[in-house]
Amino acid sequence: MTSTLEKIQSVKYEHDKLIILDQTKLPMETFYTKLDTIEDVWDAIFHLKVRGAPAIGIAAAYGLYIAARDIESDNYEEFCMKLKKHSSYLASSRPTAVNLFWALNRMEARAMECRDKSVSEIKVILLTEAHNIRNEDEAMCIAIGENGLKLLANGMTVLTHCNAGGLATAQYGTALAPLYLAKDRGWDIKVYADETRPLLQGARLTTWELSRSGVDVTLICDNMAAMVMKKGIIDAVIVGCDRVAANGDTANKIGTYGLAVLAKAHNIPFYIAGPTSTIDLKTLRGEDIPIEERHEDEITCAFGKRTAPEGIKVYNPAFDVTPHQLITAIITEKGIVTAPFDEGLKGLFE
Amino acid sequence: MTSTLEKIQSVKYEHDKLIILDQTKLPMETFYTKLDTIEDVWDAIFHLKVRGAPAIGIAAAYGLYIAARDIESDNYEEFCMKLKKHSSYLASSRPTAVNLFWALNRMEARAMECRDKSVSEIKVILLTEAHNIRNEDEAMCIAIGENGLKLLANGMTVLTHCNAGGLATAQYGTALAPLYLAKDRGWDIKVYADETRPLLQGARLTTWELSRSGVDVTLICDNMAAMVMKKGIIDAVIVGCDRVAANGDTANKIGTYGLAVLAKAHNIPFYIAGPTSTIDLKTLRGEDIPIEERHEDEITCAFGKRTAPEGIKVYNPAFDVTPHQLITAIITEKGIVTAPFDEGLKGLFE
Repeated sequence: MTSTLEKIQSVKYEHDKLIILDQTKLPMETFYTKLDTIEDVWDAIFHLKVRGAPAIGIAAAYGLYIAARDIESDNYEEFCMKLKKHSSYLASSRPTAVNLFWALNRMEARAMECRDKSVSEIKVILLTEAHNIRNEDEAMCIAIGENGLKLLANGMTVLTHCNAGGLATAQYGTALAPLYLAKDRGWDIKVYADETRPLLQGARLTTWELSRSGVDVTLICDNMAAMVMKKGIIDAVIVGCDRVAANGDTANKIGTYGLAVLAKAHNIPFYIAGPTSTIDLKTLRGEDIPIEERHEDEITCAFGKRTAPEGIKVYNPAFDVTPHQLITAIITEKGIVTAPFDEGLKGLFE
Repeated sequence: MTSTLEKIQSVKYEHDKLIILDQTKLPMETFYTKLDTIEDVWDAIFHLKVRGAPAIGIAAAYGLYIAARDIESDNYEEFCMKLKKHSSYLASSRPTAVNLFWALNRMEARAMECRDKSVSEIKVILLTEAHNIRNEDEAMCIAIGENGLKLLANGMTVLTHCNAGGLATAQYGTALAPLYLAKDRGWDIKVYADETRPLLQGARLTTWELSRSGVDVTLICDNMAAMVMKKGIIDAVIVGCDRVAANGDTANKIGTYGLAVLAKAHNIPFYIAGPTSTIDLKTLRGEDIPIEERHEDEITCAFGKRTAPEGIKVYNPAFDVTPHQLITAIITEKGIVTAPFDEGLKGLFE
């Protein structure tokens, strides 16, 4: 790994403080902010200051620890009841990100196992659990990178959407992890990054972190991906995921589904990369994934200037679902899954 | 036609003055600006203050008249030489828009026919010719609207890209003309408008003019079109065109090709609407159409705020080419052309 990359940490817990890199201020400002309360954490997730399914999970775990730390009761039952309440509150910050629920459930479960411990001991255990979630995520990203690398080759050009990079995880990212590993091995890898409207995570974040690490990246608007594919210069599409259903249908940032259709039309492999915590076997099909709709202002006044008439009707879904038929492979830390996805995904948990 | 619509004129020549509605200031400001010199006209076309292939043609025709008016020589040969020079200069303002060349050639040809007239008579003739170009365009838009209406039905929902509306033409538009006629007939027509990055003509202009005329319009980001199509609510896609090659391949605003691929994947008819002046039989295939690349700032700092890191590589093609195989029909003022397009398009000129 390049030493520059090592320094980018979107969520960190240092000197008893939860600190996040405020991603809404990138790329112009590298601004770290301290989150003191569970409300601060909810707000940071809701307003996308911390974003990316794994990073949200990590922030939520630390957020729940902060809430737990401040519970004044020494009574185990009362502590657990309050913890559950805080957990539900944090879960309401982003309805689609399964890692959020996964991290919160894991924290709650840890507390449930500790009936024989004192509340103050449990608080220490919860902090350790949050650290573990963070450190395991970093190790997972590296494993995803290693697996993804098997699908790439030196000299390839890859298209990505949104930001599934180091900023979205503990470090290294999911979709971007293979690209960082490739760069580290001296491969000549080129990346086209969709800007990703409405919130421009591709323009603001992906180009920022890739170029900081010396990866050759070119920014395009979302509607240019088809033309770039037609030129024959894209060898693969790699994107992250917010939730993978049992059959392989994948919810990810709005625009992913369209890219998958375009990739198929141009015979370009379409890869999803994500940790197994993003796979939700209880959700059978894509149709069962709730799709968050966000405020119209994200579209009509995103660039600091109003860009559409007042009062205009707007449709602003934050995610779409890519049917498994359009997915070439799902890259996880435990291995690469190809069709039939239902069997392959189930197999990861056996 | 609704009376509100009648009032929108993007290019007008009144009291011996060329006046344009500055489309870069929409939707927040309805700002008309006077163009006194050929340099003003070149600048207005180059900076997209006047945009849309037919409106560019109209502005260029008046622009060439203004230049002709100010030629001081009374010598016919000298006048024509200077006129040609001014015409070449105006032609350099937008390399892809064939209407620009078409209008300028028509003006030049008119002057060439008038060897027996005095220069001052020719100046009057050139102004009349520019008026004719404008008035013929309005009549053409209505004819395109009538033809397009044959492909639609009451209750339909249509997706459009960029702005091929009244603002892009003398009045009524090309792709939007059938929608205005439908509205005028009391049909219940709904429109989804792509915002159309980088310059957001859909968000700024299409929603502005449609909603002003009472048409039900919903704004989406370009990367949401695929999801909206998958929901099954889009009955047809209608877009304009900047140049149609002899085989039907069509250059239009970047993003059009991707939409055509998506429409095909969802079994949605994909219509191109444009005047026959946009058809360039001398350009045999889409590959022969030059594609203008524009400045990276349009993507990285389009609306008052920098949205990508400094110095990042950017690819910014203004147009893409949709192969004729993806086009269901090309709607012109002279009729509707379907495959085989080469024969049908040629037939329009016989």
